[in-house]
Amino acid sequence: MSINNPDVDLTRYQRGWDKLREIDGEAGERVIAALQDIAPDFARLLIEFPFGDIYSRPQLDLRAREIAVVAALTALGHAAPQLKVHLHGALNVGCTREEVVEVIMQMAVYAGFPAALNGLAAAREVFAQRDADAAAATSSVG
Amino acid sequence: MSINNPDVDLTRYQRGWDKLREIDGEAGERVIAALQDIAPDFARLLIEFPFGDIYSRPQLDLRAREIAVVAALTALGHAAPQLKVHLHGALNVGCTREEVVEVIMQMAVYAGFPAALNGLAAAREVFAQRDADAAAATSSVG
Amino acid sequence: MSINNPDVDLTRYQRGWDKLREIDGEAGERVIAALQDIAPDFARLLIEFPFGDIYSRPQLDLRAREIAVVAALTALGHAAPQLKVHLHGALNVGCTREEVVEVIMQMAVYAGFPAALNGLAAAREVFAQRDADAAAATSSVG
Amino acid sequence: MSINNPDVDLTRYQRGWDKLREIDGEAGERVIAALQDIAPDFARLLIEFPFGDIYSRPQLDLRAREIAVVAALTALGHAAPQLKVHLHGALNVGCTREEVVEVIMQMAVYAGFPAALNGLAAAREVFAQRDADAAAATSSVG
Amino acid sequence: MSINNPDVDLTRYQRGWDKLREIDGEAGERVIAALQDIAPDFARLLIEFPFGDIYSRPQLDLRAREIAVVAALTALGHAAPQLKVHLHGALNVGCTREEVVEVIMQMAVYAGFPAALNGLAAAREVFAQRDADAAAATSSVG
Amino acid sequence: MSINNPDVDLTRYQRGWDKLREIDGEAGERVIAALQDIAPDFARLLIEFPFGDIYSRPQLDLRAREIAVVAALTALGHAAPQLKVHLHGALNVGCTREEVVEVIMQMAVYAGFPAALNGLAAAREVFAQRDADAAAATSSVG
Repeated sequence: MSINNPDVDLTRYQRGWDKLREIDGEAGERVIAALQDIAPDFARLLIEFPFGDIYSRPQLDLRAREIAVVAALTALGHAAPQLKVHLHGALNVGCTREEVVEVIMQMAVYAGFPAALNGLAAAREVFAQRDADAAAATSSVG
Repeated sequence: MSINNPDVDLTRYQRGWDKLREIDGEAGERVIAALQDIAPDFARLLIEFPFGDIYSRPQLDLRAREIAVVAALTALGHAAPQLKVHLHGALNVGCTREEVVEVIMQMAVYAGFPAALNGLAAAREVFAQRDADAAAATSSVG
Repeated sequence: MSINNPDVDLTRYQRGWDKLREIDGEAGERVIAALQDIAPDFARLLIEFPFGDIYSRPQLDLRAREIAVVAALTALGHAAPQLKVHLHGALNVGCTREEVVEVIMQMAVYAGFPAALNGLAAAREVFAQRDADAAAATSSVG
Repeated sequence: MSINNPDVDLTRYQRGWDKLREIDGEAGERVIAALQDIAPDFARLLIEFPFGDIYSRPQLDLRAREIAVVAALTALGHAAPQLKVHLHGALNVGCTREEVVEVIMQMAVYAGFPAALNGLAAAREVFAQRDADAAAATSSVG
Repeated sequence: MSINNPDVDLTRYQRGWDKLREIDGEAGERVIAALQDIAPDFARLLIEFPFGDIYSRPQLDLRAREIAVVAALTALGHAAPQLKVHLHGALNVGCTREEVVEVIMQMAVYAGFPAALNGLAAAREVFAQRDADAAAATSSVG
Repeated sequence: MSINNPDVDLTRYQRGWDKLREIDGEAGERVIAALQDIAPDFARLLIEFPFGDIYSRPQLDLRAREIAVVAALTALGHAAPQLKVHLHGALNVGCTREEVVEVIMQMAVYAGFPAALNGLAAAREVFAQRDADAAAATSSVG
């Protein structure tokens, strides 16, 4: 993804873009692409601040960061699309399905059973999509 | 802490009580003690469900669980007393101060800067209390 | 629903299961069934803690409990599926449609008009489903 | 409390004022008084809409309404001052201490244990204040 | 919309109805119409309090009021249908598309990126609908 | 405030710092100063992203931005310290006291009366502090 704004710190932008792809993969790229028509500057800011500034910091590994974000988005309860992106992210950086389910279950204690139930529904969708993607990849190889 | 209710599953209760002490230490014990006058049954349920049922499950280690709860309580924003208890908990089970500060900072992305700023204020209080406790322990030893 | 875990307190589990069926009926059973593939332990915990521990307590009758949960889920605003289950629950334990509509309307004062409007949309769906179920039952009898 | 605005519907205003005094008593009057310096129109609107329009409707009795509001404010978690006013209100209209504690405990299921713990802390303060007021009244009689 | 309730302050009701039409146009009328089957009194209260009492006050112009409500509903995150109505409202009273997008982007700072992303998704839908309506109007004229 | 990090974009940092001072004045500087002991990097990020990136954009004037943030923080309800900083900010960039009170009152419609009441309590504190500061300035001049 190229950018033609002379005020943009390209190092920071590139670092963010690489980190976003590492964590969220295609689900993250789709979020960025979907912003181009309505708020392209926000796409850039999303790459720069969360990914270029925060996720690139070495103080916490990506596995711990994804556990934190799955917990927070489950607890907040109003961010199902972003929770799904980060469930992919958690699995992409090495968390197991059992672990992310466990984080969501734990949120029943802090945000109530409805928040946890809705988090589990998001996990079910993400797992099914990954199974379908894996099956498609296998069959196209075969 | 003894309990005289024949309907209580003592194994689960004891497991929860041990887990609460392992994670939250004295801060957790104070929460339980404070409930005795107003809702002693809720103290029991708090030991049994979050600690006896959830935190005792082996699917996630305590370090990951405390990262999850620090993230969630920072993001929710209305639970400063419980966030402080779990900042102690996170440090008790092996997270560093730098790591919990980093989790709180990351929450700026998901719940906004005010939630993160209030989380950092809670961390400052917890760190100061632990420093004071350590200083008192050292001086009483000396 | 049988369970083969030797650590489970069967009395508490059975008490919870009976209470869940008494309150939420088929809508509650569907919630439990939907959890079997992704988090069967969470299904068990949902039966044990909310229903076996909390709803089974005699300190508050089920009508008051359902008014409380309809109020809370309307106010929280991020739990439409669970609000619908408990609108069925409220009607199942003796609340009238007029009463649950009134509770939702009252929430405009405490959580704003959008929360109340979304609560009323949930109530419309629940009432329509119950009317359809009643019509189907009548016609199958006739 | 008199009002000199010709556009005000005095019947509705008076109905609201009477209802506010019936439910919240002195705690409610203090809320209104505190608004006079900063937003006197908001004091009027608070009397007219929540109390004149909503609480005066006969579709739900005051006991059920106070259970609903204690549940909602406990669950929302950011409204401790208003929760205290309505804990007084619930007790004023006939709920027992045991019942309001039970409603707050139930909220652990829907909004998490921190929200319930903070609700119980509010209840402890309200009960202590009522005990102190009762003791003062007794001693001044004696 | 006529109303046959002798207790209703017709001036206030008419003022609210006119204000609702001025701000929200057909989207607002649809909200009112949708309430007639389930809670017609709530439709009346929605006209009277938010629009008759609040939006009719001269202390703030409608452009500022719509910026405030777009900000608040984006930040709250659980009110997508009402956010869409008020995105129409903001554009109806003179805000530009660029301005409402900017308000939503600013909310990333206060409520996190997921809330802002979901707000932008609502804006995309509203802009597309207005483009479609404008195209239909042009084609029916031609 | 100087900074010795070679990776920092000094133009963006300086632009953010100037904007923070323009809007929030001393209240903003105190927020930054308070972060130096616990999370100095977060102080930098707070200057860079909200102020250097967002508030510096010309698409919305500062008066509209402060109305948006007062609305959002009042509605969210868990950010009283930040609401006070931005009430100062709103008055600093040209909003009147009457206008910010009106924005807070409007939030009763979208987030409920408790959120609005707590917002008015924050406004009362801010107005009193500004009156005291003005009195002190006058007396020190005299």
